[in-house]
Amino acid sequence: MLAKLAAEECWERLGTHGIGRIALPVHPGPGVFPVNYGVDGRTVVYRTAGRGAAAAENGDEVSFEVDHIDEYQSTGWSVLIVGTAEHVTDPGTVRRFEEQPGSRPWAGGVLNLWLRIVPGQVSGRLIRDL
Amino acid sequence: MLAKLAAEECWERLGTHGIGRIALPVHPGPGVFPVNYGVDGRTVVYRTAGRGAAAAENGDEVSFEVDHIDEYQSTGWSVLIVGTAEHVTDPGTVRRFEEQPGSRPWAGGVLNLWLRIVPGQVSGRLIRDL
Repeated sequence: MLAKLAAEECWERLGTHGIGRIALPVHPGPGVFPVNYGVDGRTVVYRTAGRGAAAAENGDEVSFEVDHIDEYQSTGWSVLIVGTAEHVTDPGTVRRFEEQPGSRPWAGGVLNLWLRIVPGQVSGRLIRDL
Repeated sequence: MLAKLAAEECWERLGTHGIGRIALPVHPGPGVFPVNYGVDGRTVVYRTAGRGAAAAENGDEVSFEVDHIDEYQSTGWSVLIVGTAEHVTDPGTVRRFEEQPGSRPWAGGVLNLWLRIVPGQVSGRLIRDL
C-alpha cells in the first residue's frame, strides 16, 4: 500500500539532519549521490567539494531524496524534494551551518561549497506491506 | 576520503538483490524512488505498477543508485548505474524474475511491469572518514 504524506509530515520525517541523496540533472542520466544534510527552515543544505560529484551549479534544477526502509518489516517511507540549488556564499550563514549537527562531511578533504535546495515541490510516500 | 570502485567491485556490492533508488529524468527535477531490485546478469531489474512513480518509459535514460551508509562509523559506499530502461515483456523472463528473492514489492497491489536497466556506465565510491 502506498499512502501520500502531507508536506508537513514530509518535513517532520526529514528531521533536522541525516543522510539523503542529491540527484543532479547531468547527462547521461541523473547523477545520484548520498550526502549528509541539514534542514534550515524549509530548505535543505549540504556541503560538498566545489568540483565534487554532488556539486550542483547555482540555479540547477535538482532533486533531493530521503528514505527510511525497514527490509525486515517491509515498511518504509520516502520523501522527494524537487527544487533549485543555490550556492551559499554569505559567511554568517556558512558559519551557522557549520555549527549544525551532522554538518561534518565524512569524506573529509576541503569541502568548501555549501548548497541550499530551495523546494518547489515536496512529496512523500508511506509504504506498507499488504 | 573517497575511493573509486572498479566495475566488478560495484557489482559485488550490489549483490543479488536489495533496495535501490531509481532516478528518472522527469520534469521538473529528477524523480527518485526506492525500489526492491534484483540483479540479472549485468543488469538490474525491478517491478512497479505500469503507471506508478517509479515506472520508466521503454528507452528512457535512467539512473539507479544503491548505497550502504553507516551513520555511526561514518563509512559507506555508493554505486551509480547510468543506463537505459527496458520493459520486460517475455513471459519466461518475467516468470524467472518472480522466482527471485526480494522480487515481491512491498507496496502490494498489481505491479505488473518489470523493468530492466541496461547499464551504460557503472561507477562506485567508497567513503571513509578521515
